[in-house]
Amino acid sequence: MSTRRQFLATSAALSAAASLSPRLFAAGAEGKKKLGYALVGLGRLSTGQLAPALQKTEHAKLAAVVSGTPSKREEWRKKYDLGEHVYSYEQFDRLSDDDAVDVIYIVLPNGLHAEYTIRGAETGKHVFCEKPMANTAEECRQMIAACEKGKVKLGIGYRCQFEPHHLRAMEVVRSGGVGELRGLGAGFGFKMPADADPDQKLHWRLNRKLAGGGPLMDVGIYALQFCRYMTGREPDSVTAQTTLTDPVKFRQVEETLGWTMTFPSVLGDDLPEPLRAQVTASCATTYNFSGFNQGEAFGPDGSVLLKPAYSYTGLEGFVKGEPMNLDTPDQFAIEIDAFSQSVKDNKPFKCPGEEGLRDLLAIEAIYKAAETGRRVDVAKV
Amino acid sequence: MSTRRQFLATSAALSAAASLSPRLFAAGAEGKKKLGYALVGLGRLSTGQLAPALQKTEHAKLAAVVSGTPSKREEWRKKYDLGEHVYSYEQFDRLSDDDAVDVIYIVLPNGLHAEYTIRGAETGKHVFCEKPMANTAEECRQMIAACEKGKVKLGIGYRCQFEPHHLRAMEVVRSGGVGELRGLGAGFGFKMPADADPDQKLHWRLNRKLAGGGPLMDVGIYALQFCRYMTGREPDSVTAQTTLTDPVKFRQVEETLGWTMTFPSVLGDDLPEPLRAQVTASCATTYNFSGFNQGEAFGPDGSVLLKPAYSYTGLEGFVKGEPMNLDTPDQFAIEIDAFSQSVKDNKPFKCPGEEGLRDLLAIEAIYKAAETGRRVDVAKV
Repeated sequence: MSTRRQFLATSAALSAAASLSPRLFAAGAEGKKKLGYALVGLGRLSTGQLAPALQKTEHAKLAAVVSGTPSKREEWRKKYDLGEHVYSYEQFDRLSDDDAVDVIYIVLPNGLHAEYTIRGAETGKHVFCEKPMANTAEECRQMIAACEKGKVKLGIGYRCQFEPHHLRAMEVVRSGGVGELRGLGAGFGFKMPADADPDQKLHWRLNRKLAGGGPLMDVGIYALQFCRYMTGREPDSVTAQTTLTDPVKFRQVEETLGWTMTFPSVLGDDLPEPLRAQVTASCATTYNFSGFNQGEAFGPDGSVLLKPAYSYTGLEGFVKGEPMNLDTPDQFAIEIDAFSQSVKDNKPFKCPGEEGLRDLLAIEAIYKAAETGRRVDVAKV
Repeated sequence: MSTRRQFLATSAALSAAASLSPRLFAAGAEGKKKLGYALVGLGRLSTGQLAPALQKTEHAKLAAVVSGTPSKREEWRKKYDLGEHVYSYEQFDRLSDDDAVDVIYIVLPNGLHAEYTIRGAETGKHVFCEKPMANTAEECRQMIAACEKGKVKLGIGYRCQFEPHHLRAMEVVRSGGVGELRGLGAGFGFKMPADADPDQKLHWRLNRKLAGGGPLMDVGIYALQFCRYMTGREPDSVTAQTTLTDPVKFRQVEETLGWTMTFPSVLGDDLPEPLRAQVTASCATTYNFSGFNQGEAFGPDGSVLLKPAYSYTGLEGFVKGEPMNLDTPDQFAIEIDAFSQSVKDNKPFKCPGEEGLRDLLAIEAIYKAAETGRRVDVAKV
């Protein structure tokens, strides 16, 4: 840990000690109709999805940006009328003094999530962090601890957990619509551009340090999430294998990964009856072809299928073959509003840091299984 | 090996030695328009599919049956005008003297395939055997050896290898229609009746001795086949896991199994270019729910999907989302005609015993992976 970080950690500890009553809200958040969000990292997600979503949200608005590129800062300042609420990374910690900002939304490469979430918590602002939560489970734990210490909320950007097709699928499965849930099939992947290279900033997803891993971290996590929230449980054991056709492009992270998971049977807990049996999940992810984009849950009475399941728009769902006929709303707007409401009402958020940690625990088990060729117990990683 | 079997083996060896020139045809087969088939085992497949198929075949007809149930023998004798060509299992070896019979079609439980294929070869008749070829790879080798020794052809009943949707899928993938093949997803399963029990003759599929294993042997094999004939290669390594929700019904064989396979990259062989890259396959099978019934092949330019993929009727196929719009013909009639033609023309059959053996080698690796929790190299099992 750097001296600066130690200093910040110390100052946060002093600050926490100084205000002995829990600081449940970032300064000024409680009375606001719309919370102010600072987008940290102005890449494609911020530009194409988050800024537009923040024009539609009921409980949130774009209040500030943080970017390392002066021209981007200027562009966003003008486009969104941000005035002085435009920061470089060197100025990040000054967000603490910006009353327009209630929530810091971390949209950086995965490898920077931990650092900026921790620094974000130290500003006293709530933190919303894109998935995957971090490169490792250990980083997730540090992020959770930092937000607890800073007495700020931490949410992870799992948009599908707020999306109507996914919610309908969960509802059908949980209510026994396909009988006892017994099988899952899920996959998500896409094709990286032909010229993508891990040394290019634009393709940080291929860079191990910045991405933490390959497609499993970035898109396979949606398939993992699907299995986790359809079962309402954590995977028990996993097996995995990878294949490689382009050893240059994929010299740092996996190219394609297939994995299986089992979910244990449970008795007498809070889960509805249809979710208590053992479940087999068969999953895959890739950065080298398109087509994996589905989630299906099987029971003795039929299946619920989402396909395409994880796109930004145009999702389709089927219950025992019958189309769900639902619209796909702006998933980012919904999740941002949900987090904002949980901040305003000081209520638990559906996808807190612990949810991100659970994914990383499973992901570390899957990588270990792929590496060792052994079935890995998730609880023992 | 029983004394009777030793006797038979010896007598077959003597018989082979006696006719030093290869006996390429069963007696009388070469001149016939339609070869005569003896169905061995009059269960649901024979009753519902094979006898009707043998009314439609151009190069084959139903000539005889073998059954252990007197009432069934009588029923079939009348229904299909079989006259004296009706046998009990005790009379099986007398098929050698039945000039109406050119091919013996083994439709018995898996655990009896080896014995009856070997005895069938010893009658001098060609043998067509249902999938899976046998309970073990070792049995497959014995069956191949027996048919070589008897100088008769051996074919395995892989109906999908003759089915238009599957052929179209292969054609598209082999010609590079989705680019380099890189991913596969396949699964097949069904739900056993609630009252099924391994001790009931009707439910021999649950009985380890008769079935050799569970759904992987019976229906998962279709998903395995799909992966094998889409790649044109043998799986390299496998991982697998099982889940169990009904330990009474599934006390002898697995209930649900998820597995991954990798296919190695190959260079400079006979395979078309699109099939030479490493491929990840993600697969599943079950006896405890419906819904797994698909095969999909992914490349950088799109995918080919069959769903439903392995049913007797109503298959549907999609190339990059566009429907194939093909009919599903009687798959049994096509495969029987194909085997009959290969017998009549003395040409290699597409699915010989070696093809059945290759599946069993993969299946044994998958079971070993499930049992040990380790990734298993198929070549080392």
